[in-house]
Amino acid sequence: MKSAKVLIIMGSDSDFPVVESAIKVLREFSVEFEARVCSAHRTPETASSLAKCAESNGFDVIIAAAGKAAHLPGVLASFTPLPVIGIPIKSSAVGGLDSLLSIAQMPAGIPVATVALDGAENAALLAIQMISLRDEELREKMQEYKRGLADKVRAKDADLQLRLRVH
Amino acid sequence: MKSAKVLIIMGSDSDFPVVESAIKVLREFSVEFEARVCSAHRTPETASSLAKCAESNGFDVIIAAAGKAAHLPGVLASFTPLPVIGIPIKSSAVGGLDSLLSIAQMPAGIPVATVALDGAENAALLAIQMISLRDEELREKMQEYKRGLADKVRAKDADLQLRLRVH
Amino acid sequence: MKSAKVLIIMGSDSDFPVVESAIKVLREFSVEFEARVCSAHRTPETASSLAKCAESNGFDVIIAAAGKAAHLPGVLASFTPLPVIGIPIKSSAVGGLDSLLSIAQMPAGIPVATVALDGAENAALLAIQMISLRDEELREKMQEYKRGLADKVRAKDADLQLRLRVH
Amino acid sequence: MKSAKVLIIMGSDSDFPVVESAIKVLREFSVEFEARVCSAHRTPETASSLAKCAESNGFDVIIAAAGKAAHLPGVLASFTPLPVIGIPIKSSAVGGLDSLLSIAQMPAGIPVATVALDGAENAALLAIQMISLRDEELREKMQEYKRGLADKVRAKDADLQLRLRVH
Amino acid sequence: MKSAKVLIIMGSDSDFPVVESAIKVLREFSVEFEARVCSAHRTPETASSLAKCAESNGFDVIIAAAGKAAHLPGVLASFTPLPVIGIPIKSSAVGGLDSLLSIAQMPAGIPVATVALDGAENAALLAIQMISLRDEELREKMQEYKRGLADKVRAKDADLQLRLRVH
Amino acid sequence: MKSAKVLIIMGSDSDFPVVESAIKVLREFSVEFEARVCSAHRTPETASSLAKCAESNGFDVIIAAAGKAAHLPGVLASFTPLPVIGIPIKSSAVGGLDSLLSIAQMPAGIPVATVALDGAENAALLAIQMISLRDEELREKMQEYKRGLADKVRAKDADLQLRLRVH
Amino acid sequence: MKSAKVLIIMGSDSDFPVVESAIKVLREFSVEFEARVCSAHRTPETASSLAKCAESNGFDVIIAAAGKAAHLPGVLASFTPLPVIGIPIKSSAVGGLDSLLSIAQMPAGIPVATVALDGAENAALLAIQMISLRDEELREKMQEYKRGLADKVRAKDADLQLRLRVH
Amino acid sequence: MKSAKVLIIMGSDSDFPVVESAIKVLREFSVEFEARVCSAHRTPETASSLAKCAESNGFDVIIAAAGKAAHLPGVLASFTPLPVIGIPIKSSAVGGLDSLLSIAQMPAGIPVATVALDGAENAALLAIQMISLRDEELREKMQEYKRGLADKVRAKDADLQLRLRVH
Repeated sequence: MKSAKVLIIMGSDSDFPVVESAIKVLREFSVEFEARVCSAHRTPETASSLAKCAESNGFDVIIAAAGKAAHLPGVLASFTPLPVIGIPIKSSAVGGLDSLLSIAQMPAGIPVATVALDGAENAALLAIQMISLRDEELREKMQEYKRGLADKVRAKDADLQLRLRVH
Repeated sequence: MKSAKVLIIMGSDSDFPVVESAIKVLREFSVEFEARVCSAHRTPETASSLAKCAESNGFDVIIAAAGKAAHLPGVLASFTPLPVIGIPIKSSAVGGLDSLLSIAQMPAGIPVATVALDGAENAALLAIQMISLRDEELREKMQEYKRGLADKVRAKDADLQLRLRVH
Repeated sequence: MKSAKVLIIMGSDSDFPVVESAIKVLREFSVEFEARVCSAHRTPETASSLAKCAESNGFDVIIAAAGKAAHLPGVLASFTPLPVIGIPIKSSAVGGLDSLLSIAQMPAGIPVATVALDGAENAALLAIQMISLRDEELREKMQEYKRGLADKVRAKDADLQLRLRVH
Repeated sequence: MKSAKVLIIMGSDSDFPVVESAIKVLREFSVEFEARVCSAHRTPETASSLAKCAESNGFDVIIAAAGKAAHLPGVLASFTPLPVIGIPIKSSAVGGLDSLLSIAQMPAGIPVATVALDGAENAALLAIQMISLRDEELREKMQEYKRGLADKVRAKDADLQLRLRVH
Repeated sequence: MKSAKVLIIMGSDSDFPVVESAIKVLREFSVEFEARVCSAHRTPETASSLAKCAESNGFDVIIAAAGKAAHLPGVLASFTPLPVIGIPIKSSAVGGLDSLLSIAQMPAGIPVATVALDGAENAALLAIQMISLRDEELREKMQEYKRGLADKVRAKDADLQLRLRVH
Repeated sequence: MKSAKVLIIMGSDSDFPVVESAIKVLREFSVEFEARVCSAHRTPETASSLAKCAESNGFDVIIAAAGKAAHLPGVLASFTPLPVIGIPIKSSAVGGLDSLLSIAQMPAGIPVATVALDGAENAALLAIQMISLRDEELREKMQEYKRGLADKVRAKDADLQLRLRVH
Repeated sequence: MKSAKVLIIMGSDSDFPVVESAIKVLREFSVEFEARVCSAHRTPETASSLAKCAESNGFDVIIAAAGKAAHLPGVLASFTPLPVIGIPIKSSAVGGLDSLLSIAQMPAGIPVATVALDGAENAALLAIQMISLRDEELREKMQEYKRGLADKVRAKDADLQLRLRVH
Repeated sequence: MKSAKVLIIMGSDSDFPVVESAIKVLREFSVEFEARVCSAHRTPETASSLAKCAESNGFDVIIAAAGKAAHLPGVLASFTPLPVIGIPIKSSAVGGLDSLLSIAQMPAGIPVATVALDGAENAALLAIQMISLRDEELREKMQEYKRGLADKVRAKDADLQLRLRVH
């Protein structure tokens, strides 16, 4: 079976601090990835070329992060049959509505799987859930990951009980 | 290889006219599906049970449609390792922002792949793209589907040329 | 007569600085409470279990605080006949509209009593008003509390008169 | 034990078609109510007087419906220790955000329990949940009501299965 | 002729830093004023009493500043025939839309003259324009004030020319 | 004493159905008015000339109605010392936020008294309140008008009592 | 001198009823144009090819109309040095904010000249103003056109005077 | 051939830090410009005079920057046949929606070419694209500029590869 591989593309290197959480998750799941800076508007040829070759280059899923009039995920989706996950990056204007709507409101025919504003961790988890459709082992890791999240919540709850008892 | 199967859940039967486009696409791709009416709030036990059993019942992907404070996709996602696609249903208030934000703004750890308001066709296509990760034939159909979309655009363009010449 | 008891649930321990104002009010009114960290999405079983047992555990009202796609109050409400008060937590995106709409726009059948963004003090006061329906003494304390608020406004007004006279 | 009684106040008689759902629910639960048209701005004295006398007139909860700059629920709340439930009425402008925010964003000290835009059914259910704090029988009816809602969802689900089989 | 007098009411002393600009303008125009802290919700009796007596106390115009669910200007307007000017105070949530809509969207019958978010200077100028309807001298001062504003713009323009020449 | 006179300017004749309510009110109060169609952008010279001459032509107040990027009230205000009341006209886009914000968010120095979206009746009442600053008789009529509004509310309330008794 | 030529591209033939106003204006100014249906997402190769060849095909300006996540104008702009004018098409969701923000919020480096929602007439006029930079005759026609607009406003104003006299 | 000349007008000198990016671009392209501070509301005569004389003073394009109820670009456009580019300046309220909508939503007949919130760099590039309609040399510089932007993106991409390899 082909090993999992994710292509991460961010519209600007200023998106990296957000995108980093996706990279962290992929590393935690030992999923191979490539991360690129590529602008839908400044380097459109590179963008279409990355998308067109993604499948033959062995990628399973594309994660694309962009802000403002965030066209990158949609542009990539128009050039590939692979599922594309879009991360709307919150910049300073209109509370982030610009990037959220530019990514989520894709017209019929070319879907983009939109996650929350700055939701890079979820983008990576969603990519892993997708690849789990053919990779049982990855699905088990995901279950474990979710158990880990639940444990953290329980630990925080225990902390809170202590804190409240003290006061 | 296991055959593709999609679980569609709508929060109310009033969502059916929108969800129907997803069903039409799945049928066009000969992807098996089950469609259910199930409310996150009125039948929470059924919702969690459907989600918990989805994997063992042979489903690959869950598509969930809901309006207003649209919790259904997120609630299902919390009970399954399968990828969950959320369709925000536009009702009359606040232009649909309520359902879009309730679905897209999921917290880290539990992703929901959000499509556009009333974007049922894209929800089905996204599900198919996900399953294509292990089903080459489905991916080829998807490429054909996209060629069909392009053909339609070209036909509309040809129509327009005729219409403009006449005037 | 059964003594008053409130169950406070926050979706994340990062909500505590906001929720603390609710705790302060409950303590001021000598209303017993339990405060828990519990996520609708990461620990859904705990959430439903807390809600299902709340009544038999002697609670009168549930206060639930959550941000972003804030499903927690609605999820709890679906599992209990007790009144649920929702506190939308303002995070950085879209000015807090996401959590406000996710909590306020509940579908018919399962109400959540929504207070203002970060309105934890009002959540506690509302809980107390509810319990006052069977507890005359608590209602009297509430009247006194409101008189205290009015006194503070009058004191601020007096301060202002002094300040304006000086200039 | 004192019998349950709800005071419903609508800012304009044009709100009646929405408010009617609250009346229907209260009748279904055999909860006594009085319904009044009273404007916070055009008849402010009546508004404050209704609120001030509500408790001594034997009311348990106030439900107030208003649109646009919807001050009525907040104004009533400032004159009574009873819990006040606010129904934001959606008029044509800004998607209803005006009435939702005017009711939900109450300042600390004077809570209003806000339900969804045009959420009159939930306002009545919430009132009943509150009164159930001292009325066990009402709580049992509420549980039955919720079971009825669940049954309706299951019936709709059964209908859908039939409909899908036919096509 | 009766001398001009303005009643300024702020919902909270935390609004003072904004309201101060109105005071500064009134002083510059030598218009008498009284400034009060008075909450529509915490001290409703004082609010209605201030509004009811404003005319007989010799006031010409009321300026009211409030944030969040900003009911104060509307509440005052319901108790007085005097023109009421509303200053929506921008707090942290939803970009200030809550206070702007709560003040601007008044129902037919009870107008509030709304100025911009935190627009205290304009509130004072508008009050002066209103009083100028019977006070020719004040109108002349206003013309002078506007000429002063224009002079400042021209001075800034001259500064810019210098700055650009240097670079 | 100079008799009251109001200048009404609408940006387009399509605004007339809204503006008509202002005319109706002014006629009811026997306040003289002139109503003009004049666009801030298509006939800017006429707009500035109307504003500049308004005072010497005996007008007391200007009411200006405009939609979309509604510059008309602000443009008129920049050319006159008279108070300018702005009516934001709700067109189909963004729920009317464009005209509301274009009128309400005026910069410091040039106030526009903004009323609600399509709030023409209130614009006229506000104009009358302003003129009442020098016209006692008009103020008395206003008090009577408000009593009339209150009477209507009470009549509607009486109607509701009948209607509810019947059912 | 090269004659003026405008390339109009609409993302879908459903945009034609809006775009038609641009065509009407261009015909009125005798400016040559070509109108095409071409989707940024369904026919991305055609889109980039149209944009890349626009200059050598003798076009001066591109007008692009699109709705929802309206990427078309930005995508075209990334492939041509010609000025691109974007018309956001208002569809049913979020009041049109999605298409407006997707077009207006372009990142630095690749401008799109955005006009109002459904502002096709202005898109054509803007294109003509741009071409007027090298075509004196066109500028004169534009001045005449604006005089025509002013005449229409004046005619409407005259109509209004008649109408008001009658009543 | 006439040399290129751009008139930049900002509504307030506080807009300069944003507008500076436009100046930087124009200097980089050696395009002559004049920059002025001029308020649509405080110095309306200067504004209309600058706009009316812009053409005869040899300007090709006007760039206008303004915040809040940003009327400046539209007011200038009403007095000139030259293309006007509007830069909405983001101030603190409503996420900048006020200035964006005040500039973008211009009525039919008087277009303003709107760029992104604080999009001064794009305003200058758009002006250059317009002037390129008659200035081949400038178009070549623009192509070079865009190649420079692409090079920067590629350099950032190379940096990222290094950074990821290190970790």
